[in-house]
Amino acid sequence: MEPQKKLINSVDSCVDEALYGLVRASEGLSLLKGHRVVIRSDLDNLRGKVALLSGGGSGHEPAHGGYVGAGMLSAAVAGGVFASPPPASILAAILCLHNAGAAGVLLIVKNYTGDRLNFGLAAEQARNHGITVDMVIVADDCAFDRPSKAGRRGLCGTVLIHKLAGALAEEGCPLDQIVLKMTEVLKRIGTLGVGLSPCSVPGCLPSFDLPPGDMELGLGIHGEPGIKRSKVASADEVVKLMIDQMTNPDSQSHLPLKSGDSVVVCVNNLGALSCLEMGVVTRAAIICLENQGVVVARVMSGSFMTSLEMAGVSLTLVRANQETLRLFDARTTALAWPHLSNVCVTGCRYISDPPAMSTRPQDDSYSEGPLSHVMRKTLERVCFTLLEKQEELNSLDRAAGDGDCGNTHAQAARAIQEWLQDHRVPGCPGKLLSVLAGLVQEKMGGSSGALYSLFLTAAAGHVTEEQSSAAAWASAIHAGTEAMRRYGGADPGDRTMLDALCPAVDELMNLSTTPPGGQMAVLQAAVTKATLGAEGTCNLTAQAGRASYIAAERLTLPDPGAVAVAATLRAVLEVLEGQK
Amino acid sequence: MEPQKKLINSVDSCVDEALYGLVRASEGLSLLKGHRVVIRSDLDNLRGKVALLSGGGSGHEPAHGGYVGAGMLSAAVAGGVFASPPPASILAAILCLHNAGAAGVLLIVKNYTGDRLNFGLAAEQARNHGITVDMVIVADDCAFDRPSKAGRRGLCGTVLIHKLAGALAEEGCPLDQIVLKMTEVLKRIGTLGVGLSPCSVPGCLPSFDLPPGDMELGLGIHGEPGIKRSKVASADEVVKLMIDQMTNPDSQSHLPLKSGDSVVVCVNNLGALSCLEMGVVTRAAIICLENQGVVVARVMSGSFMTSLEMAGVSLTLVRANQETLRLFDARTTALAWPHLSNVCVTGCRYISDPPAMSTRPQDDSYSEGPLSHVMRKTLERVCFTLLEKQEELNSLDRAAGDGDCGNTHAQAARAIQEWLQDHRVPGCPGKLLSVLAGLVQEKMGGSSGALYSLFLTAAAGHVTEEQSSAAAWASAIHAGTEAMRRYGGADPGDRTMLDALCPAVDELMNLSTTPPGGQMAVLQAAVTKATLGAEGTCNLTAQAGRASYIAAERLTLPDPGAVAVAATLRAVLEVLEGQK
Repeated sequence: MEPQKKLINSVDSCVDEALYGLVRASEGLSLLKGHRVVIRSDLDNLRGKVALLSGGGSGHEPAHGGYVGAGMLSAAVAGGVFASPPPASILAAILCLHNAGAAGVLLIVKNYTGDRLNFGLAAEQARNHGITVDMVIVADDCAFDRPSKAGRRGLCGTVLIHKLAGALAEEGCPLDQIVLKMTEVLKRIGTLGVGLSPCSVPGCLPSFDLPPGDMELGLGIHGEPGIKRSKVASADEVVKLMIDQMTNPDSQSHLPLKSGDSVVVCVNNLGALSCLEMGVVTRAAIICLENQGVVVARVMSGSFMTSLEMAGVSLTLVRANQETLRLFDARTTALAWPHLSNVCVTGCRYISDPPAMSTRPQDDSYSEGPLSHVMRKTLERVCFTLLEKQEELNSLDRAAGDGDCGNTHAQAARAIQEWLQDHRVPGCPGKLLSVLAGLVQEKMGGSSGALYSLFLTAAAGHVTEEQSSAAAWASAIHAGTEAMRRYGGADPGDRTMLDALCPAVDELMNLSTTPPGGQMAVLQAAVTKATLGAEGTCNLTAQAGRASYIAAERLTLPDPGAVAVAATLRAVLEVLEGQK
Repeated sequence: MEPQKKLINSVDSCVDEALYGLVRASEGLSLLKGHRVVIRSDLDNLRGKVALLSGGGSGHEPAHGGYVGAGMLSAAVAGGVFASPPPASILAAILCLHNAGAAGVLLIVKNYTGDRLNFGLAAEQARNHGITVDMVIVADDCAFDRPSKAGRRGLCGTVLIHKLAGALAEEGCPLDQIVLKMTEVLKRIGTLGVGLSPCSVPGCLPSFDLPPGDMELGLGIHGEPGIKRSKVASADEVVKLMIDQMTNPDSQSHLPLKSGDSVVVCVNNLGALSCLEMGVVTRAAIICLENQGVVVARVMSGSFMTSLEMAGVSLTLVRANQETLRLFDARTTALAWPHLSNVCVTGCRYISDPPAMSTRPQDDSYSEGPLSHVMRKTLERVCFTLLEKQEELNSLDRAAGDGDCGNTHAQAARAIQEWLQDHRVPGCPGKLLSVLAGLVQEKMGGSSGALYSLFLTAAAGHVTEEQSSAAAWASAIHAGTEAMRRYGGADPGDRTMLDALCPAVDELMNLSTTPPGGQMAVLQAAVTKATLGAEGTCNLTAQAGRASYIAAERLTLPDPGAVAVAATLRAVLEVLEGQK
C-alpha cells in the first residue's frame, strides 16, 4: 500500500507553501520571517488592545491562519502537519504582538498535550520577558461520557472562541475580562465529529482503516479513535445521534441544552464532504434542534477546522445569550470567516410565493376563430404522419443515436391528439403555438422536446388573430428557427433538423413579397427544399447532437430529425392544398 | 461495486434538502414554493435594476444558490444533480423578478446544451409575456485546442461573471450595457481543471475510472473526459502545465495573456482537495504567473464551483482592467463570496521581520558570581547521575512506554555537559535556569523536554543573584512544578514525575520558615519523599502520558520519569552536602 498521492511539491515543503498561498492571497496578512507564523500586517491597530494568538498543527486549514484579521486573531502559529508548533515560534509571535503595543496577549490553545506544553512554555518564557500573557484552553469534544485525565479534546469550537474573544479584544475589553468571559463560554460549547473516511498525513498511510460504507462517531481532528462505528445512516439519523450524544446529561462532556435555549450552530466540513451533503446536514441540524424546541440563532456551514481530506462533518453548538450574538455578529476581516446574516434563523421566513401569473394560457382564456378549423386539420395530419413514420425514424436513428427518434416524435403526436380531443383550437395562431410548446415541452422530452418547444415559443409572438398572413407565418417560422439555432448551438450543415428547416425558411421568406396567387408555389418550393435538405444530410458529418459522437463513415443514412421536419412540412402543405 | 455511501437522506430528496439548508442558514434568501429556486428575500431592492438569474444542475454547490445576494445574483434555479433545471422553474423565477419591478432579466448560462435549451425556452416564454430578457452564455473551458461544435464548456468562470455582472446591475447599469460588457469579459476569461479522483452522482457509480496516483487534465465539472491523463506531478508542475495550456496561442480556446497584463485568479476546489493542498496550489499559481511577468491583481481560493466530491482543482484567470477590479471589489452579501482584500497581490509586502529581542540570553550578557561554582558542580553531578541511570530508566520505560526515557534524559545530560565545557555559569541562578530551559527544549525533545523546559522557565523568574535564599529556591521549584501541572494536565497520583516532585516540593516549602541551620534537614526530607513517591508509582494506574494507554495490571514497576526526578534531587543534595 502506498501513501495517497497529493497535489503538493514535497512532504517537507507543503506546510510552508500553504502558508505562503494563504498570506499572498490576502493583503492583511504577513509571514514572520524564519517562523511559521501568520500575523496581521496592520500591527499598529493592536496598540492598547489585547492581542490574540492561536495555532497548532497544520492540516486543519483554514485554521488557524485563515482567522487572522481585525476582530479575530492577531497571529497564528503553525506546526507541521498534525504536529504542535515549536515554542520558539510561539514566543516570537508573542514578542511581535507585545512589541506592537498590545495590552497583553491571550493564547487560545486546543486541548492537546503537545499544544498545551509548547504554548505553555512560550507563555512562561514571555512572562520572564515581562509580558502579560494568559491562556484559554479549548476542550469542546463531546465524544466521551467519561473523558480521560487528558480531558476533552479541542475541536472546531476553537474557531468560535477566536471569534468571540476577537470581538471582545477589538472592543477594547481587558485581558482578564476576556479570559473570564471565555471561561464561561467554554462551559456552554460542545462539538462532535463523524467521519466517513480516514485522512492521511502527506507521505503517510491513512490515519486509520474504515471500510467503505462505515462511519465513525466522535473522532478527533487528527483521526484519533471515536466512540462508535456503524454503517453510514441517513443524514437525519446521524445528526440526531450527534445532537443526542452532545446534549446527553448522563455524559460528563455534555452541553447543557433545553427547550427555549438559543444556540449558534457551526456545521464544519472535515475536508472532503461534498457541499451538497453539507447542505443536507445543515438542514438536518436546524430541524433536529428546532424539533427539540431550541432556537437556532445563527448557522455557519463550511470548512472551518478540517482534518485534511477526511470525508466527514462536525457539529459545534454554543448556547448563546445576547452578548454571544453581539460578538458573533461583530465585523471581522479574517479571510476564512464566512459572510453571515445577523438575524435569528428560527422564525425567519424562507419561502416565497411563486408568481401568480400562470406559465401556460388557460383553457378558457381563448375562443375559436376562422382559422381554428384549418389549424385543427393541419395538426391532425401532422400527428398522423409522425405516427406513421415512427418506425422509419427509429430505424434511421439506430444508425446514429439511441434509436428512439420515432418514439419521441410519436409521443408528441399522441399528446397533441389527446389535447385536440378535449379542447377547442384557439382562433389566435400564437395562442395555439404556445399551447403546443407547452405540450411538447412536457410530453416529448429530451433535446428534441426542448428544441421544438423553443421553435414554437419563439414563433408564437409573430402570429395573432389580426396578423396571420402568409408573411406573418413565414416570419414566425423564421423566428422559431433562429431561436433553435441560437440556443441549440447548431448551424445548417451540422446534420440536424436545421438542414431541412433552414432551406425551407429561406424559401418561405419570399412570402413577404409574393402576391397572394403565388403563395402556394412558394410553400411547395419550401417543402421540396426541406425534403432535399433532409436527404442531403446523409452526406454530412454530425457536428451537434448525439450523432456527433459517431464516426462520420458510419453515417450513410439521412438524419432522422431532418426527415421528421420535412415530413411535418409536407403534411402541412397537403392540408393547405386540400383547402383550396 | 456499490455506489459510494453519502451523508444524505435519499437520492431523491438531497437536492431539495441541500437548498433548504442553504436558505435557512441565511436570512437574505428564500425558496420559491414549488420550485428549486433560491431567490433574494429583499426583492423590493431590485426595483428599477437589472435582475440576474443563473442556475444549472446541482452538485456544483455553492453554485449557484450561494451567489444569490445584493451585488451578485437575484435568483438561482437548480436542477437535479448534474441535470439542467426545468424551463417552468426558470420561467417562474423570471416572472418573480419581473413582478418585483426589475428593469429586465439577464440569464447567465453555462455552455451545456441542456442549460442553453432550457434557459433559452424560458427566455422565449418570458418574452411572450412581454418581459425584457437577455442571455449571456459562459464558455470558459480552455481544455480543447479545437473545441467541437458544442463549443467550450462553462466552468468556474461563471462565478466571476455573476460577480462582475452583479456589480454592474447593482450600480444601475442597463441590461444591454451589461450584456455588452460581459461579452467583452468573456473574451478574456479562461478556466482549466485537473482531477485526482472521479466524483459520483448520489446513487450512481463514479463518473469515470481513474487509478490512484493518476490525474486527468481538462475535465468538465460533471466528470466529462479531459485531454490528458498522467501520473500526478508536483503541484508546481501541474499548475505550470495548466497555465501553459490556458495561455497557449496555438489553442483556439486560449486566453490571450502577456507579460505586464493584470489578472484575477480563482483557485477553485472541485470538492475534496484538502485546504492544505489548496494553499500549495494557490502559491504555485501566483508564482507561476508572476514568473511570466503577469501582475496578479486579486486571488480567490476556495470551493466555488464544485463537482461533488471530486479531488481536484480548477484555475480561472480573468485578464483585468480597472473596471474589472472595481466590479470584482464591489460589496456583495452573497453567502459564498469570500472575504477578499482590494489590494494588488503582486507587489504587496507579505514578510514581517521577527522580533529583534533574542529568545535566549546571550552568552556575554552575564558574568559569573559566588554561586557559579556550586551550580556548576551540581549540574555536573546531575548529568553524571542521569547518564549512569540511562539503562535503568530505559528498562523501566520498556514496561510502560517506548523504552527511551533513559535516552531522553541522557540527551539532556550530554547537552548540558557540552554547554558546561564551553561556557561560564552565570552568577544569577534565574539566568542559568533559562539557559538550561533552552538547552532542554532544544536537545531533550518529546514531552519530557517540554515539561522540564516548562519547569525551568517558570522557576527562573523566582531566583536572582540578589534573591537566592533557600526559600527563594523553594518557591522557584514550586512555581516550576505548578507550571508542569497546569500545562501538562497531570496531578499527583497519575503516575508521572509529579509523584516524586510534588511531595518533595511540599517539604521544600517549609524552607520559608526554617532557620538556616535546619535547611539541610528539610532538603534531606524532601529527597526522601521524592524517592518514596517514585517508588510508590508502581502501585498507581497511569492517567497521563504514554503509559496511560497500558492496562494497569501490566504496570508493576515504578514510573521512570518519577525515578529520574528523585535521582536528580538526590544528586543535588549530595553536592550540597559536600559543600558544607
